[in-house]
Amino acid sequence: MRSPQSLRNGGMSSPHARMPTPHHHHHFHSTVSVQKLKRFNSLILVFRLSTFCFSLASAVFMITNSRGSGSDSPRWYDFDAFRYVFAANAIVAVYSLFEMIASVWEISREVTLFPEILQVWFDFGHDQAFAYLLLSADSAGTALAITLRGTDTCRVTTAFCVQSTISIALGFAGFLFLGLSTLLSGFRVVCFVINGSRFHF
Amino acid sequence: MRSPQSLRNGGMSSPHARMPTPHHHHHFHSTVSVQKLKRFNSLILVFRLSTFCFSLASAVFMITNSRGSGSDSPRWYDFDAFRYVFAANAIVAVYSLFEMIASVWEISREVTLFPEILQVWFDFGHDQAFAYLLLSADSAGTALAITLRGTDTCRVTTAFCVQSTISIALGFAGFLFLGLSTLLSGFRVVCFVINGSRFHF
Repeated sequence: MRSPQSLRNGGMSSPHARMPTPHHHHHFHSTVSVQKLKRFNSLILVFRLSTFCFSLASAVFMITNSRGSGSDSPRWYDFDAFRYVFAANAIVAVYSLFEMIASVWEISREVTLFPEILQVWFDFGHDQAFAYLLLSADSAGTALAITLRGTDTCRVTTAFCVQSTISIALGFAGFLFLGLSTLLSGFRVVCFVINGSRFHF
Repeated sequence: MRSPQSLRNGGMSSPHARMPTPHHHHHFHSTVSVQKLKRFNSLILVFRLSTFCFSLASAVFMITNSRGSGSDSPRWYDFDAFRYVFAANAIVAVYSLFEMIASVWEISREVTLFPEILQVWFDFGHDQAFAYLLLSADSAGTALAITLRGTDTCRVTTAFCVQSTISIALGFAGFLFLGLSTLLSGFRVVCFVINGSRFHF
């Protein structure tokens, strides 16, 4: 069992970090705090992973959604709203991948990828903005899918409409987990503003 | 010029509030704090008023959007997405009206309508949820409006499509101001959590 202090500095290669000088500027964090923070970060990581899986699946389902090669066979890029769904899900998937790396880095090395204050605000701001983006895209996609249902496009090539609907549903699942991440990262911002540290809840 | 203390208790009719007892449980708030709070609340009120105007205008534009009385003339309630736009804007208009009353109450009487902790969380939670709702509705409306543009509906009755587009644009303006209100009410929650009072920024 390593002590919290060695955990805290586990990822640092600088010789200063291992020297027990009295001017050591890191605060001492109790084992309980470190454990809590680890659990909290693991929960965020789970949400990020879920967001990544769902939005990636949504983007893949949308991009592969072309039926036939004739001039009248429907293709996803012929519809503005479906292009928007694909773009939003792809952006969110890339962002979630980056945040997962940042989260794994923080859990394994006990330091944030960016400076702490930048990291918490970056996470919260992007979570919020991308949640709006994803919801907007999925709503637009839903409206188009509902409109298409009554037209010839869906009567002739049912598979096209079914696959779009699945893609949009996966996008909504991604939004759900992104919304949960937003709550947690918002909570982290509040904790940081109150205590000036990630280490107190 | 009234003192901050008399301002603070201006709205209370209880005799206790006016008695200068030593066990008086209200904190003393400096004139600067009171002034700052008034300015902050006035800004929120302006955003609420803007949200109310835009979402009410959007709902009215949508509900009056029926052309002709024939069976093939387009009506707004025949389209799912337009019904959604109307419903979301109407809900936000009613909510904004309520919040405006609460805001005017707070500015004039110096006390919140609900207990303070309930009020700040109520405001923030509803702002956030209704911002999602309104964005989702307007995105769905936009997708439908774009789809309709290529069909006979818009070629025959141009006014119908123009009026829907205006309604949706007004809805987006409402969302913008609701988003700004969300930022301010989120800030108020953080201030409240930090200081246990609305009176310190």
